[in-house]
Amino acid sequence: MSDQPLQVVLAYYQAWTGKDIDKAMAYIADDVVCDAPAGRIEGAAAYRAFMAPFAAMLIGATMIAAFGDDERAVIVYDTATPPVASGPAAECVTVRDGRIAYSRFIFDRLPFAAARPADS
Amino acid sequence: MSDQPLQVVLAYYQAWTGKDIDKAMAYIADDVVCDAPAGRIEGAAAYRAFMAPFAAMLIGATMIAAFGDDERAVIVYDTATPPVASGPAAECVTVRDGRIAYSRFIFDRLPFAAARPADS
Repeated sequence: MSDQPLQVVLAYYQAWTGKDIDKAMAYIADDVVCDAPAGRIEGAAAYRAFMAPFAAMLIGATMIAAFGDDERAVIVYDTATPPVASGPAAECVTVRDGRIAYSRFIFDRLPFAAARPADS
Repeated sequence: MSDQPLQVVLAYYQAWTGKDIDKAMAYIADDVVCDAPAGRIEGAAAYRAFMAPFAAMLIGATMIAAFGDDERAVIVYDTATPPVASGPAAECVTVRDGRIAYSRFIFDRLPFAAARPADS
């Protein structure tokens, strides 16, 4: 596998959107830090707990754009899930040693919160 | 000015975060289409009505990442406003003839809705 950030984040994206969480986690650093809409997520276990339930209910995902350089990459994609037909997201990641070490994760929580008020 | 998408979107970003809405609109196509969290925005007048109130209350913005190719560009940045201390956003744009013709705009509406329930 390539250590280039864009290749790493695309492999990670293919894995989690294919619901292969173990494979997706192979691209996540043990000490990953992710700034997500609900706050900071620290460590691979917490990241997995953040990602796995969403991947489990994923109906489909469509890549919109993907760019990267030697240190970082950005992917923008749309997701379809039972509560939200179109839930676009952006992930801006920093890759070290072939794994995502930092991620800025952007999506709109409002439609998810509206569908499941107890989770907002 | 350069017609390269990344240069166009950076000039647009500098203008609107500097609260120069007229200058920012110079980089927006008359028939712009923007898919924003609340739905599709069509036309420059509607886009200005979407952007101007947010720019007016902006305290500051910090660029996180910016990438582009010959057709499109992505910028990821954080914003600070009175209701939301950190409101990151991503804009994925298609540029034609030096102007933004299409934009996919991603940010989390939830903290803004929580601060101003009547606007949610």
